[in-house]
Amino acid sequence: MDYAAESLKMHYALRGKIEVTPRAAVDSREALSLAYTPGVAQPCLEIQRDASKSYELTRRWNTVAVVTDGTAVLGLGDIGPEAGMPVMEGKCVLFKAFGDVDAIPLCIRSKNVEEIVDTVALIAGSFGGVNLEDISAPRCFEIEEKLKERCDIPIFHDDQHGTAVITLAGLINALKVVGKKLEDVKIVTSGAGAAGVAIIKLMMSLGLKNVVMTDRSGAIYEGRDGLNPIKREMARLTNRRMEKGSLREVIRGADVFIGVSAPGTLTADMVKSMARAPVIFACANPTPEIFPDEARAAGAAVVSTGRSDFPNQVNNVLCFPGIFRGALDVRASRITESMKIAAAYAIAGLVGDEELSAEYILPQAFDPRVKEAVALAAAEAARRDGVARI
Amino acid sequence: MDYAAESLKMHYALRGKIEVTPRAAVDSREALSLAYTPGVAQPCLEIQRDASKSYELTRRWNTVAVVTDGTAVLGLGDIGPEAGMPVMEGKCVLFKAFGDVDAIPLCIRSKNVEEIVDTVALIAGSFGGVNLEDISAPRCFEIEEKLKERCDIPIFHDDQHGTAVITLAGLINALKVVGKKLEDVKIVTSGAGAAGVAIIKLMMSLGLKNVVMTDRSGAIYEGRDGLNPIKREMARLTNRRMEKGSLREVIRGADVFIGVSAPGTLTADMVKSMARAPVIFACANPTPEIFPDEARAAGAAVVSTGRSDFPNQVNNVLCFPGIFRGALDVRASRITESMKIAAAYAIAGLVGDEELSAEYILPQAFDPRVKEAVALAAAEAARRDGVARI
Repeated sequence: MDYAAESLKMHYALRGKIEVTPRAAVDSREALSLAYTPGVAQPCLEIQRDASKSYELTRRWNTVAVVTDGTAVLGLGDIGPEAGMPVMEGKCVLFKAFGDVDAIPLCIRSKNVEEIVDTVALIAGSFGGVNLEDISAPRCFEIEEKLKERCDIPIFHDDQHGTAVITLAGLINALKVVGKKLEDVKIVTSGAGAAGVAIIKLMMSLGLKNVVMTDRSGAIYEGRDGLNPIKREMARLTNRRMEKGSLREVIRGADVFIGVSAPGTLTADMVKSMARAPVIFACANPTPEIFPDEARAAGAAVVSTGRSDFPNQVNNVLCFPGIFRGALDVRASRITESMKIAAAYAIAGLVGDEELSAEYILPQAFDPRVKEAVALAAAEAARRDGVARI
Repeated sequence: MDYAAESLKMHYALRGKIEVTPRAAVDSREALSLAYTPGVAQPCLEIQRDASKSYELTRRWNTVAVVTDGTAVLGLGDIGPEAGMPVMEGKCVLFKAFGDVDAIPLCIRSKNVEEIVDTVALIAGSFGGVNLEDISAPRCFEIEEKLKERCDIPIFHDDQHGTAVITLAGLINALKVVGKKLEDVKIVTSGAGAAGVAIIKLMMSLGLKNVVMTDRSGAIYEGRDGLNPIKREMARLTNRRMEKGSLREVIRGADVFIGVSAPGTLTADMVKSMARAPVIFACANPTPEIFPDEARAAGAAVVSTGRSDFPNQVNNVLCFPGIFRGALDVRASRITESMKIAAAYAIAGLVGDEELSAEYILPQAFDPRVKEAVALAAAEAARRDGVARI
């Protein structure tokens, strides 16, 4: 199917993938007096007395804003705020279909960190959470950090943390398949943007020690010229052996490759140079760093991509609807590291030991067990972390 | 019925009066590829090439933000942003039920004019229009003016302009009932806040000449001490005879009283002191400036209030859903004076000459003809004014 042409046709026909639906009747004078004036004054006063009642008397408890500035939309790059909206609306559909969450798409006409932070922080009282989407690195890190400081609701940049959770879930199962441990493996990444950084930080919080991240200029190491602040931070945290050189050089002997970069970055020769039973995450979209067939022919034991037409898809829909569902269910004030780790284990755990194989390390996007498993795990972790408010 | 208690119960049971509903399926791999990646890239690129396509490929064409800062909610005053949300959600229900408009409630955690303007302007690309709601005067004037300058979509402060349109519609018919002309009558107001100012400005744009506005300190006249900027402006525009004194003094001989102030402001004695066949708009809510029975006993020919349990209700639901419907239908860049006047005549025109009476100057809120009549009138006026974009 020509997805581009068919999707465009569908979008013209639909004229919007979401709509707002009333849950209260206003079809009689009496109904109007209850849903609106004069009756509505009472719930207003109730919230004035106790602001937390906004979670009980309005839709806030179930509502998430999906916010972009349009600077890193899909693989398209900086296409502008309005042009990002078809993706945001799609995300809102996924939120409802996979998480029963009411999500509202918002695009911001600014690339300025402070302006974006102010805008989101000032409307945060309307929502139970904020999903940041398709905001370019390194601005996305700063925006997320500042919003976390200013807001009392979960702020979650899905391109970072959703991807990190699913990749971790996949890695947990892939390492079982090849019989290796996270503490022992060497991981090399291609890409040190939003997703790459979040993936590695999450894995390190679980015990990963030996990592070399690479970007277009090769290995990232402490003291390398021209590193931006986040890469400088990663240079301090990773690559303690100070490996230098190109991906081709540093991938020798590595156990795991994680690609969140560009098509064709990984060659068969590089795979052959890795340690026994290499695990490959080739998540560039839509064209991966290496195609599964080629990777397997070169000796890869497990291959995962971002595509639904190959096995082991790293698909964020496995995470964000459930993790927000869990966060909203306990009215979490934030999404913590252990909520993300719990979500990753919950996703990995849906693949039973007897089913686990090189071709099946992650559940399907449409697996009906995912939402509840992830929501429950996230909610329990929120309770343990003391960020649950109910 | 005890509306306060019943409404509170209903709000606790509903947990939100609106929700977000998908219009696209994501129940199969193929559906997902059309509504989301990879297919969604194509509509994104289409909008990147031509920003106006956001009105065809997303829900923007039908979506309005309902924005408050919570400073003037109903008659409750400054109760805070979150506490205003039950009203905003109710308004969103009305938008859909009476105008087929998708409306999204947003509260802003700031009372600062610049911050509110920046916030709304930066997210304006997500919407086809903005309905400002329950923002206190005089900030509401400045916020609306600045947003109109910065945004390319309609900005409409319903408390001002919706009320003005309906009051004008009522006045048009009331003057028919009493056989007077707008150019000849003397109007006295009680209240010079958001609604009062907008009502008088709209009526003056149609030919009203003789007006005295009053506030708690009595008649507003040029040179009076302590007037805020908007009252200073009204002092220049109205009361050219420089009448001074209390409402009691300036209402003598007036033809029309318009109250948007406080319960009990108008007494039977004052009505008796007015000209032949006085017309009374007593719109303080929920308790009017004078009750209809008392006003009529004192000689009032026509009495209108804000309440649904008396005849001639000034109810904004007659205006805002239809005027936004019309504006959205022609993708208007703003809502002009003539769109408001056209809406007022459309509303007044729904009361046929044979039905018109002192007890029936305005159509009922549930009159099914209202939406289309107002939408059509507003859309036609937008075309005449050159603000229609399709």
